[in-house]
Amino acid sequence: MKFVKTLSVAGALAALPTFALAQDAAPTFNEIGPYIMTSLLFLIGGFLVFWMAAGFAMLEAGLVRSKNVSTQLTKNIALFALAAIMYWAVGYNVMYPLGEMSFASMAEVDKDLINWTIYSLREAEDGTVAVIGYLGAFGLAALQDVGVGAGDVDLGYASDSSDFFFQLMFCATTASIVSGTVAERIKLWPFLGFVVVLTGLIYPISASWQWGGGFLAEMGFSDFAGSTLVHAAGGFAALAGAIVLGARIGKYKDGRVIPMPGSNLALATLGTFILWMGWFGFNGASQLAAGTVGDITDIGRIFANTNMAAAAGAVAALILTQVMYKKVDLTMVLNGALAGLVSITAGPLDPTLFGALWIGAIGGVIVVFAVPFLDKLKIDDVVGAIPVHLIAGFWGTMAVPFYTSGTSFVTQFIGFAAIGIFVFVVSIIGFIILKAIVGIRVSEEAEINGLDMSELGMEAYPEFTKG
Amino acid sequence: MKFVKTLSVAGALAALPTFALAQDAAPTFNEIGPYIMTSLLFLIGGFLVFWMAAGFAMLEAGLVRSKNVSTQLTKNIALFALAAIMYWAVGYNVMYPLGEMSFASMAEVDKDLINWTIYSLREAEDGTVAVIGYLGAFGLAALQDVGVGAGDVDLGYASDSSDFFFQLMFCATTASIVSGTVAERIKLWPFLGFVVVLTGLIYPISASWQWGGGFLAEMGFSDFAGSTLVHAAGGFAALAGAIVLGARIGKYKDGRVIPMPGSNLALATLGTFILWMGWFGFNGASQLAAGTVGDITDIGRIFANTNMAAAAGAVAALILTQVMYKKVDLTMVLNGALAGLVSITAGPLDPTLFGALWIGAIGGVIVVFAVPFLDKLKIDDVVGAIPVHLIAGFWGTMAVPFYTSGTSFVTQFIGFAAIGIFVFVVSIIGFIILKAIVGIRVSEEAEINGLDMSELGMEAYPEFTKG
Amino acid sequence: MKFVKTLSVAGALAALPTFALAQDAAPTFNEIGPYIMTSLLFLIGGFLVFWMAAGFAMLEAGLVRSKNVSTQLTKNIALFALAAIMYWAVGYNVMYPLGEMSFASMAEVDKDLINWTIYSLREAEDGTVAVIGYLGAFGLAALQDVGVGAGDVDLGYASDSSDFFFQLMFCATTASIVSGTVAERIKLWPFLGFVVVLTGLIYPISASWQWGGGFLAEMGFSDFAGSTLVHAAGGFAALAGAIVLGARIGKYKDGRVIPMPGSNLALATLGTFILWMGWFGFNGASQLAAGTVGDITDIGRIFANTNMAAAAGAVAALILTQVMYKKVDLTMVLNGALAGLVSITAGPLDPTLFGALWIGAIGGVIVVFAVPFLDKLKIDDVVGAIPVHLIAGFWGTMAVPFYTSGTSFVTQFIGFAAIGIFVFVVSIIGFIILKAIVGIRVSEEAEINGLDMSELGMEAYPEFTKG
Repeated sequence: MKFVKTLSVAGALAALPTFALAQDAAPTFNEIGPYIMTSLLFLIGGFLVFWMAAGFAMLEAGLVRSKNVSTQLTKNIALFALAAIMYWAVGYNVMYPLGEMSFASMAEVDKDLINWTIYSLREAEDGTVAVIGYLGAFGLAALQDVGVGAGDVDLGYASDSSDFFFQLMFCATTASIVSGTVAERIKLWPFLGFVVVLTGLIYPISASWQWGGGFLAEMGFSDFAGSTLVHAAGGFAALAGAIVLGARIGKYKDGRVIPMPGSNLALATLGTFILWMGWFGFNGASQLAAGTVGDITDIGRIFANTNMAAAAGAVAALILTQVMYKKVDLTMVLNGALAGLVSITAGPLDPTLFGALWIGAIGGVIVVFAVPFLDKLKIDDVVGAIPVHLIAGFWGTMAVPFYTSGTSFVTQFIGFAAIGIFVFVVSIIGFIILKAIVGIRVSEEAEINGLDMSELGMEAYPEFTKG
Repeated sequence: MKFVKTLSVAGALAALPTFALAQDAAPTFNEIGPYIMTSLLFLIGGFLVFWMAAGFAMLEAGLVRSKNVSTQLTKNIALFALAAIMYWAVGYNVMYPLGEMSFASMAEVDKDLINWTIYSLREAEDGTVAVIGYLGAFGLAALQDVGVGAGDVDLGYASDSSDFFFQLMFCATTASIVSGTVAERIKLWPFLGFVVVLTGLIYPISASWQWGGGFLAEMGFSDFAGSTLVHAAGGFAALAGAIVLGARIGKYKDGRVIPMPGSNLALATLGTFILWMGWFGFNGASQLAAGTVGDITDIGRIFANTNMAAAAGAVAALILTQVMYKKVDLTMVLNGALAGLVSITAGPLDPTLFGALWIGAIGGVIVVFAVPFLDKLKIDDVVGAIPVHLIAGFWGTMAVPFYTSGTSFVTQFIGFAAIGIFVFVVSIIGFIILKAIVGIRVSEEAEINGLDMSELGMEAYPEFTKG
Repeated sequence: MKFVKTLSVAGALAALPTFALAQDAAPTFNEIGPYIMTSLLFLIGGFLVFWMAAGFAMLEAGLVRSKNVSTQLTKNIALFALAAIMYWAVGYNVMYPLGEMSFASMAEVDKDLINWTIYSLREAEDGTVAVIGYLGAFGLAALQDVGVGAGDVDLGYASDSSDFFFQLMFCATTASIVSGTVAERIKLWPFLGFVVVLTGLIYPISASWQWGGGFLAEMGFSDFAGSTLVHAAGGFAALAGAIVLGARIGKYKDGRVIPMPGSNLALATLGTFILWMGWFGFNGASQLAAGTVGDITDIGRIFANTNMAAAAGAVAALILTQVMYKKVDLTMVLNGALAGLVSITAGPLDPTLFGALWIGAIGGVIVVFAVPFLDKLKIDDVVGAIPVHLIAGFWGTMAVPFYTSGTSFVTQFIGFAAIGIFVFVVSIIGFIILKAIVGIRVSEEAEINGLDMSELGMEAYPEFTKG
């Protein structure tokens, strides 16, 4: 993902004198090809990651009971829509305080940073501003002008608008992770209130520590497409929600765990396939460049590794549930595939295919053990998002040093812990405040009758008798 | 979308002398890169808009009652297939009478135009033919030859075959809009008969007035990706159908509106996500060029604006239904997102993100008010396609001048009215003729028992008891 | 699809002297553009064909009875995951024994070939190895290194990693075809055992005869994207399975065919739309090049033809079922579209749009007649995969000479027969061995109660009463 660019405009022109020339004559395709390819990468990657929002919606709608399906669908589409607005209104500039898109001029950047940045900003040597350990700059994100010329853009990167589009989808993904865990008991509006904070502030702040060029990036933390920054972050927010909410009525009774099977496994499987597909964009476009032989070839490597990790996670869960329970568990296979995907996300480029296989397979194994373990702790995670995103996200983050030189287990652990503690603490405070002020849990009666009646008054499958 | 190209081949070569050279030597990638990128844009945009056909199918299948689901699915796949054939057989050349693909040579164009064009054709100054206010030229569309060389194509545009593929999807979209409104009571074959006329003639003729270089284009009407040309056109055809058909049995009783809830809101939500995804291709590839810095950057802007408008429409409907009815209405949220998308479609490039937000939000508000308003008029629109596509399409068309210079509210209104009146009048005549000749409505008994029994003899969910 | 490349590295450099220069200076985009475009084609094509795995899953889940849905979903996701692993572990190198990716160096290729190739390998004149009629080379596939330079790759083709990703999806598709036919009665694990053999050996061996540069390629057999190599191959494996398994209990009774309607036609329709979408990647990216005007234009032609054939297949089945049965049959329309797609797959480039129309339409007609014909033979094909993939695959293969010069009906027939006999014989042996050793069919009781109970203990729709 993106680091802050610290080159001034003058510096960029000095370093790339041919571009100055290019502004006199019309630029040839030779000069602009890489910019176009990387922009296209972000557009394709962006719509694929958008598609993951549909994947989460289907997965979760399939794994909740039919009386809560409409509410779960509403939460998923609403959280995506709110994330899109919040990331524009606040998040993007909090995350990338020096992005070119953020403000009209560098002067404004300075002014805004002085006004808004909460701590620790320093002048970089080349005369522009770099920020470490900051908590962000506030302001609306703005797109590039219509019909820009080759001289108006950074030809060494991509269209900032396409980049914004792509980054936004990562922010929304973080929120999608939360909704599954807290399903079947959280009220609609308090949940959406949390989403506003998560996508406007929590995710942008913590993601900024790495992708905004913050202290984790400086430390050498490595998280290619976000096993920690997106998936574990979402998982920690989900964990906080599950703890504050408590388990669903009847889930843990007399020391036993009562199964509450999902109402539509076809939808859940569809959701998993959608997520798997979208993940090619999630990991592949996180290469952030497609205009050189090395970059496009690396993206091919990422696609192949991402696919392998998902396959290995699914097969691991398939075999393990057969061995352990004498029957295959489809929901475990689905979550196994997803855990494989999360596991490879921190480092989808460097492993060999065999590396992707064993990293993904361990992700699948993690899910099979973590789901009953969470139940033992009476943490009620309706769809298994904490095992898949938080725990496999931890595994994926820690697996990076096996294949990526220059990374260390210690740094990876510190990065994971920093993000995890921050997201968890702020999230739990957020949920507690919401609970105190408006209440976050539906009434016992509403929970038993289903949230579709209490929250929406609208059933998902009104004509199908409940068994 | 595409304007007629009036440059003669000789003129094109004169204007671009390097291409002549390029035909002697092998062309370098430098020369052909923009052609390749724009062709790729059409291919990607085309499969994304194809995907919208699936979105409409799922949305509509989810919003009808279970006894009509198989029929609704059949209508959706059949209308797409018929549109694909009709647009090839008739529509494409009606819409683009001077497109290079249409005929083997300009001589044939002349001949065909003389034979077939219904009125007002004139010789342009450069010796080729230009047509204004015409009703089209008839003939089969033909693809480019296999293995063409750089000298055989217009290097300033894109592969005509990819363009045909992309344009075809817009034609099919128009038909998809109609099927939802007239669901649950129209007979299968008369509906498909109307689709043949709509996709072979009505849409191509009216779309030609703008995208074929007709009088609306000359007037300065602006409709980037078709709020009017596709969405309102589809909506007007739907309105005509709803009026001729009348409301479903039991829908309006003793002055009250009887809710007939959709049978599967998970499918409806999936359909909305699919449409949202496909819309990136719908609006983005309507830039019609991807081979320059300005074009690819503009596409990024369009993607971001399209997403914002959808999000804003969804959030507006979310909040408004909560405020007005004290409960969120999921189907309104879905239609709010779609209305946001329709609203931005006439001008997805020029607005800022804030512009996309308020334009899309007003689209969402429109839906919440227009749905009960139509019911007050006893116009029975099963899925809300008229509010979403016609009324939000009107709004989107009228919103263009807020951000796009050189456009006027008057011209926008005239364009909308011209298309609307034409499509509505021809459609209502078409439906009346169909009604007179073969009947368009199923029998009362068939409607009560469900069209799946009367039209297909095949239920969508044969094992699930109706409630 | 890909032929073995017989140029040595030295030869490649001699033929393309500018590349040597390019390694001294940084290569310009002009030089690397085609490589990037073709790699991107494989990545986009690859995720689209991946998406077909979801399409098969939804189609099959919709066409089985609800008591078997979870099992069908499990089979589909598991077969894809196993195919991904097997194609890496064995299949890719069996299929392309001389692919650059296969082994670390040419020396190793020699060694492995000597050790493993089963018969008939010969030295080619340019000093490298070419293999005809071989049964493959064994070894793990390996991706390209991270961050390769322009000098490390074949700039005339594409990233091998992206190629591997794309090829893998074809192997998985072959397996997806089988699962539908043998549904509702085959045990999970024996089925997956067959998938391991099919994707690791059977498909790679037979596909190698053509795409690995084997004897069919030498003969002049023509199968652009795999009507025979993928679809008929999958269909023959399915036929073998159906024969060894026998029909479902109660399917053929007293000389009558008892209908067993699918449980969810909305899912089946969704699956068809997904497959249709994915097919643009399947056929389009099989052009194997996107970096010239001719190639990208041809891809546009392929997209348009592919769409037309699907549309024609759907319309043919629509009309024919109305004429024959007086009612439209939705599942026939869906299978008609798929048969149209399979029919055009052997030659999606050369036909005109009218050619694609009649070739696809005949595919749709085939399905309407072949489905009852198979029932007459008491071959119980749950989803109609044999008519769609085997019989329409035969038709598509035989239709190639109508439009593709240099092909002959005799050669096409020989190619189809060679693949068909090999796949059928090996598959039937495989199923017989599995039957003898572990048994492949669930118990009568399990079949009546549903495989979801016996194989998984997990229903797909636990809350919806069965009718």
